[in-house]
Amino acid sequence: MLLDKIIPSRLLSKALNATKRLLSERGESNAASMALDLIATYNLLSDEQKDQFFRHLAEKFNPEPANVLAAAQAYASKPSAEHLIALSAASESPRQELLRRLNRAPSGTKTIIDMRHHLLRTLHRRPELKALDADMAHLLGSWFNAGFLKMHQVDWRSPAHILEKIIQYEAVHAIDGWDDLRRRLQPDRRCFAFFHPQLPDEPLIFVEVALLPEIPGSIGPLVDKKSPTLTADQFKCAIFYSISNCQPGLRGVSMGNFLIKRVAETLQKELPSLRSFCTLSPVPAFMDWVCSGAPLTAQNVRPAWRARHQASVDLLGLRPALWNERVTSGWRPDTCSEDERAALQSLCTLYLLAQSTQPGGNPVAKFHLGNGARLHRVNWAADLSRKGIKQSAGLMVNYLYDLDKVEVNHELFVNGEVSFTKSVTQLI
Amino acid sequence: MLLDKIIPSRLLSKALNATKRLLSERGESNAASMALDLIATYNLLSDEQKDQFFRHLAEKFNPEPANVLAAAQAYASKPSAEHLIALSAASESPRQELLRRLNRAPSGTKTIIDMRHHLLRTLHRRPELKALDADMAHLLGSWFNAGFLKMHQVDWRSPAHILEKIIQYEAVHAIDGWDDLRRRLQPDRRCFAFFHPQLPDEPLIFVEVALLPEIPGSIGPLVDKKSPTLTADQFKCAIFYSISNCQPGLRGVSMGNFLIKRVAETLQKELPSLRSFCTLSPVPAFMDWVCSGAPLTAQNVRPAWRARHQASVDLLGLRPALWNERVTSGWRPDTCSEDERAALQSLCTLYLLAQSTQPGGNPVAKFHLGNGARLHRVNWAADLSRKGIKQSAGLMVNYLYDLDKVEVNHELFVNGEVSFTKSVTQLI
Amino acid sequence: MLLDKIIPSRLLSKALNATKRLLSERGESNAASMALDLIATYNLLSDEQKDQFFRHLAEKFNPEPANVLAAAQAYASKPSAEHLIALSAASESPRQELLRRLNRAPSGTKTIIDMRHHLLRTLHRRPELKALDADMAHLLGSWFNAGFLKMHQVDWRSPAHILEKIIQYEAVHAIDGWDDLRRRLQPDRRCFAFFHPQLPDEPLIFVEVALLPEIPGSIGPLVDKKSPTLTADQFKCAIFYSISNCQPGLRGVSMGNFLIKRVAETLQKELPSLRSFCTLSPVPAFMDWVCSGAPLTAQNVRPAWRARHQASVDLLGLRPALWNERVTSGWRPDTCSEDERAALQSLCTLYLLAQSTQPGGNPVAKFHLGNGARLHRVNWAADLSRKGIKQSAGLMVNYLYDLDKVEVNHELFVNGEVSFTKSVTQLI
Amino acid sequence: MLLDKIIPSRLLSKALNATKRLLSERGESNAASMALDLIATYNLLSDEQKDQFFRHLAEKFNPEPANVLAAAQAYASKPSAEHLIALSAASESPRQELLRRLNRAPSGTKTIIDMRHHLLRTLHRRPELKALDADMAHLLGSWFNAGFLKMHQVDWRSPAHILEKIIQYEAVHAIDGWDDLRRRLQPDRRCFAFFHPQLPDEPLIFVEVALLPEIPGSIGPLVDKKSPTLTADQFKCAIFYSISNCQPGLRGVSMGNFLIKRVAETLQKELPSLRSFCTLSPVPAFMDWVCSGAPLTAQNVRPAWRARHQASVDLLGLRPALWNERVTSGWRPDTCSEDERAALQSLCTLYLLAQSTQPGGNPVAKFHLGNGARLHRVNWAADLSRKGIKQSAGLMVNYLYDLDKVEVNHELFVNGEVSFTKSVTQLI
Repeated sequence: MLLDKIIPSRLLSKALNATKRLLSERGESNAASMALDLIATYNLLSDEQKDQFFRHLAEKFNPEPANVLAAAQAYASKPSAEHLIALSAASESPRQELLRRLNRAPSGTKTIIDMRHHLLRTLHRRPELKALDADMAHLLGSWFNAGFLKMHQVDWRSPAHILEKIIQYEAVHAIDGWDDLRRRLQPDRRCFAFFHPQLPDEPLIFVEVALLPEIPGSIGPLVDKKSPTLTADQFKCAIFYSISNCQPGLRGVSMGNFLIKRVAETLQKELPSLRSFCTLSPVPAFMDWVCSGAPLTAQNVRPAWRARHQASVDLLGLRPALWNERVTSGWRPDTCSEDERAALQSLCTLYLLAQSTQPGGNPVAKFHLGNGARLHRVNWAADLSRKGIKQSAGLMVNYLYDLDKVEVNHELFVNGEVSFTKSVTQLI
Repeated sequence: MLLDKIIPSRLLSKALNATKRLLSERGESNAASMALDLIATYNLLSDEQKDQFFRHLAEKFNPEPANVLAAAQAYASKPSAEHLIALSAASESPRQELLRRLNRAPSGTKTIIDMRHHLLRTLHRRPELKALDADMAHLLGSWFNAGFLKMHQVDWRSPAHILEKIIQYEAVHAIDGWDDLRRRLQPDRRCFAFFHPQLPDEPLIFVEVALLPEIPGSIGPLVDKKSPTLTADQFKCAIFYSISNCQPGLRGVSMGNFLIKRVAETLQKELPSLRSFCTLSPVPAFMDWVCSGAPLTAQNVRPAWRARHQASVDLLGLRPALWNERVTSGWRPDTCSEDERAALQSLCTLYLLAQSTQPGGNPVAKFHLGNGARLHRVNWAADLSRKGIKQSAGLMVNYLYDLDKVEVNHELFVNGEVSFTKSVTQLI
Repeated sequence: MLLDKIIPSRLLSKALNATKRLLSERGESNAASMALDLIATYNLLSDEQKDQFFRHLAEKFNPEPANVLAAAQAYASKPSAEHLIALSAASESPRQELLRRLNRAPSGTKTIIDMRHHLLRTLHRRPELKALDADMAHLLGSWFNAGFLKMHQVDWRSPAHILEKIIQYEAVHAIDGWDDLRRRLQPDRRCFAFFHPQLPDEPLIFVEVALLPEIPGSIGPLVDKKSPTLTADQFKCAIFYSISNCQPGLRGVSMGNFLIKRVAETLQKELPSLRSFCTLSPVPAFMDWVCSGAPLTAQNVRPAWRARHQASVDLLGLRPALWNERVTSGWRPDTCSEDERAALQSLCTLYLLAQSTQPGGNPVAKFHLGNGARLHRVNWAADLSRKGIKQSAGLMVNYLYDLDKVEVNHELFVNGEVSFTKSVTQLI
Repeated sequence: MLLDKIIPSRLLSKALNATKRLLSERGESNAASMALDLIATYNLLSDEQKDQFFRHLAEKFNPEPANVLAAAQAYASKPSAEHLIALSAASESPRQELLRRLNRAPSGTKTIIDMRHHLLRTLHRRPELKALDADMAHLLGSWFNAGFLKMHQVDWRSPAHILEKIIQYEAVHAIDGWDDLRRRLQPDRRCFAFFHPQLPDEPLIFVEVALLPEIPGSIGPLVDKKSPTLTADQFKCAIFYSISNCQPGLRGVSMGNFLIKRVAETLQKELPSLRSFCTLSPVPAFMDWVCSGAPLTAQNVRPAWRARHQASVDLLGLRPALWNERVTSGWRPDTCSEDERAALQSLCTLYLLAQSTQPGGNPVAKFHLGNGARLHRVNWAADLSRKGIKQSAGLMVNYLYDLDKVEVNHELFVNGEVSFTKSVTQLI
């Protein structure tokens, strides 16, 4: 099959036929060639054709409603093993089997991730594709189970093509070329990534760690590529200062939580002198929230906190336009008034303590607190970059991972409560 | 937790509690330690306690019938994406999530396979556990998708602990110690196995291949450990003479079909001189069928074949006791009468052509014909071992894998038709 | 032994003592610790102390002249096996045994290479150290025998710390950062290096190869980091465009010849479509020779060539100052007169054909012609860089490796004759 | 070159020509093909042709006596660096360069080892080949320098072809098949081998170690393949109970000493609870010495010891025939008289303390005492096998390796003195 000779307009129908064959009896016993055909054709589709292809997948490979209903009724009337098995069979989308057969080809897993990446970009305006996305997410979640992921340290002995991807995927503090990367891979900086055996050349997610004498309150010195390298006797804290997902097609597959904990265990074993594991994290969208009036939607906010909150909002009196203007005029945390500082720190603390458990709360806080970390410190003048000042008035936060308490904290968080270090409350 | 200090009778309740914790909110974010607890406790359970443990899993982690019914009704009334997603969520057993969390521990996958192995041994008298088995089978089938399996050649450079397992798991032609194994790994004999990245020390299934100048009609010379080694210029046929599953806990997970085809492709690439890929296979239970009157349950048997069948049955007039007596008295295919030989070969051919597509048909034939192989030859006096004479009067069969036709043949077979080489029909 | 507490002035005597112990009876059976002591102390010596250390090695560990003479006389009077063995024992410097014992430490080999590197920098003004250098060279030559060297392809999957060294050691056409390197490792550019098992992180020598449709006449497009990547069907010639030694301490150890030939064999096997293996090489010091009157010291220059030579010298009338002036004023090969061009090409051809076999001849030519390559083409306006114009008026040369003839050509060269492609003579 | 078509009688002259070519100018730059030719031809030679081939190597590739003498005279008159370099060049056999060029082929090193193996078998009756042997030994000694050897643990995960060689090469306590080997690779038994990077499939020398609660006095339980496996908390002593060279062609290359020490360091690091490193060794030829009158040739034997020696010799009154007769009649150490036992133990102790430093002394004692071990214990009834009783009346010896003292002990031993544990003297 010489795909590159095919008239582009025929490609879509070719892809749909390949789908049909792959799910047929012939496809059942086929090891890889039909899957390869489908992959090759899919990769030649235009973006628009891909959209049509997904619509087809979304429409044609659903469970049969009548069968589902009959199976559910039988199970409801008698919840026996037979009826449950029949129900499972009736209610699984045939799409899932299609994707499993696609996965038999060597590049199958990567293709499904890429398909989902494409799909996710249009999902917000194509809600009818959500069930297709759910099927992909379900399979990928099962296949990328944390137990199957291999953690590898990435260092200066790693292959260049892997390092190049680290540079490319770093999403928090951009890596400024190979010299910057080299600094981040010195003995007092570590980088760990998850890999899947099926995608040995693709880091899935990676975290960067700084080994420091104490918990840092600002990001500048930490990502300075000319900073001196510390020696092992100075390592007391492991600071997770950047965590980046590499595969948009794996959105929603839980990996970061497991990576941070496995890194912490690994470092603790290698360096028993480490006393704490902690992040230095941004607070994206904090000032948006402040400028919109800092609404507190949580129920269980203590009255004293509410009072402090109101006073701070009043004092700042910020609106988006006003804040933009100040930023443009060069507002900086190291020169602003004490009152302003106190008000911003109070609000940030409340934002994290009360709003993180709410819908729309800060995503970084949700991630770390949801992992069972504790809100440890709110740092003033911690990120003096333009972006840092604009989004969070230069504030950054330390979330502390106490490995003995992360499960309890996680449970508390699910139930709406945030764990925090006592000293934080002084800010409110 | 010092498990070995625990009073045995408390272990079951410990295991059940571990199950509960693993599926709780705390368990959600737990990387491995809760799973490890459950695994460690499970491994200490007595067989009886394991039975009770499984009963618990089978009873307590089912979908809620009312929820399922509501979701099915909603989907039936409007088969939208939202309703489908809700239906999938409602109808999946919480057990599956439990098993996925168990899998996060390094030994999780192996434990689930071992659990299922234990479960399968009691399943015939405990039908209420079938849905639990189905859940395990579903997950394992997805995780051991052919795309994830790595094929490795096993040879005399392989680690001894792997070779030891090959000796132990060989299920067709027992390997008589290390010298026999060594012969089977010479250049004119090959062995290929599937491995899963999570179980690098466990072959999952392996196939043994002999490279020969022509398709062999008897097994003796082929497994003779003193046979001379052939040179590459003599290799014309690759004969799959033994295929063995190693993990009973993976029963039903389709691997053999894919292994044979991948081996064929690999050998074809390495040795372009190979003309055919073929098996030399036993016909287990053939004489049981003959002695029970050789019932033909298939619909589409041609009238001429039926006549031949009846004549053969009449001629042989075999009943179990009679056959046993003859075998005991030293009946041998190389000394029996021409008529007897003709009758037995006719019946065997019919048994394979007509009965393989029927429930209860010969499992080896079902496997190869279902994979898309063709019935190529029925060999007289092919297996002169006591077992071979008893089960199939010494008959063995060649199934031919023509890689260009296996998908078509598979489809025919699913529809009740067996592909065969013309010459076979001369026997009937 | 806490070496860093030792008073620097004591280090030298420490090193000398360590040398003594290592060569003692105790040192004979010592696996590594005495060698490690010596290495650690040596590495702390100042440059001046190293010089003294080497003088000591050069003075104190020589064969005993009286013993040597006695052994030689015995051997001369009766050249028996016993006498020869005694002679070998008497005439080997004890230094060699010292170095062999030093080599027992894990870092011993690297240390000896580094020692020789240091030594070579002072050898021109310290001729009394030449025998020490000869002993080191002898042992390193034996240990780095071509049979022990492993050739590896260096590509974009290689570890970053290896690639960094490639950038650093490239001595012919400097690599301008990681993007330039990346271009040189694309599928139409190859890089191969020799490694020694004892120094897995140290490339010893590497060659860069361009795969091109034809033998190139200029270097510019070939090292342009923005040049488009060719596809495999266009590969007809493999061009060795750069070869760099990485370890000055291995000077004189023959590796380049073997590397080029092993690369050629490897590429020929991978790409049977390759028709020729050839270099594109600079002609360093050519203009120095021209400006010094272009002396022809070889005996066997044909009369016709001599005439052409004289005419060219007369026409150009170059002296160093004059040439410098022209270069400074922007002399360029693409704008100079036809006569000048003809004269320069003639002289270059003669320089290579006649002077390469002479002492002081062009080192690049000596290397390739000595390896058995043939002088294939003298390219005008091939290197328009300032350095290229200054050293060789922009001329570059192709040396052709015809694998079937390299041994014969090598022998001819040793006997004073250069192999060349016919067309070259048109230039003279 | 189709070697197998060549008339056998022509092979020798072919081999000699190949030798000549390899050492010619053409051979100088040849990477491997000429060496391969010579290797291929050599391997086809008959044993007798090999003898002739070696005679040729021994006769034709010697240094020129006149040149050697001139160089020695120059060096004696003025021992300058130049003269030393000239002397080294003149006195090295051209054979060595020949062997170095042979080594450029991938199988060169192995071939030289095999050549020397063949050579050594005839050396005793061909003293004229000793210089050839010395050249080979010199090069192999340099190439197999301890620093180049890699120590690997051999265990049940090692490749079968390596394990097979361990079975085959074990020279002290024969391994009785794969089950016996498996026992010797359990966690309380270890096996370590040296490998050379050029011969990754060939163990060069290996040592077997038992981890035990105390220093054992008899070999039986230690090599019992049904003995129970001990757990790590019981490991107090590491017992080297067997050490075997695998490559006869490397005879005289010092490896065992370094292996034992590296193993001891490795085990000490892994198991800090180990208190002692010790052997359990046979005393081959002890009874031969007793039966020949137990001659004490050492000078420095104390008078008291001499008296004890004479008394024991008188008491036993053994002659070879008499001892043979007793062994045949079932003499056993556990049933012999007290006097006899005392006399045998005395003599054995003296044999080891006094004779080990003498020419012809016990080779096992020479090896361990020469490595710097101490004579620790002489064990009665330690080896009840027929061979053990015949060669040493069932006695075995523990040599103790105290890593802090091995260098001092080695030096003492070189000077004629044996280190021993006090308690040993009670036996004399």
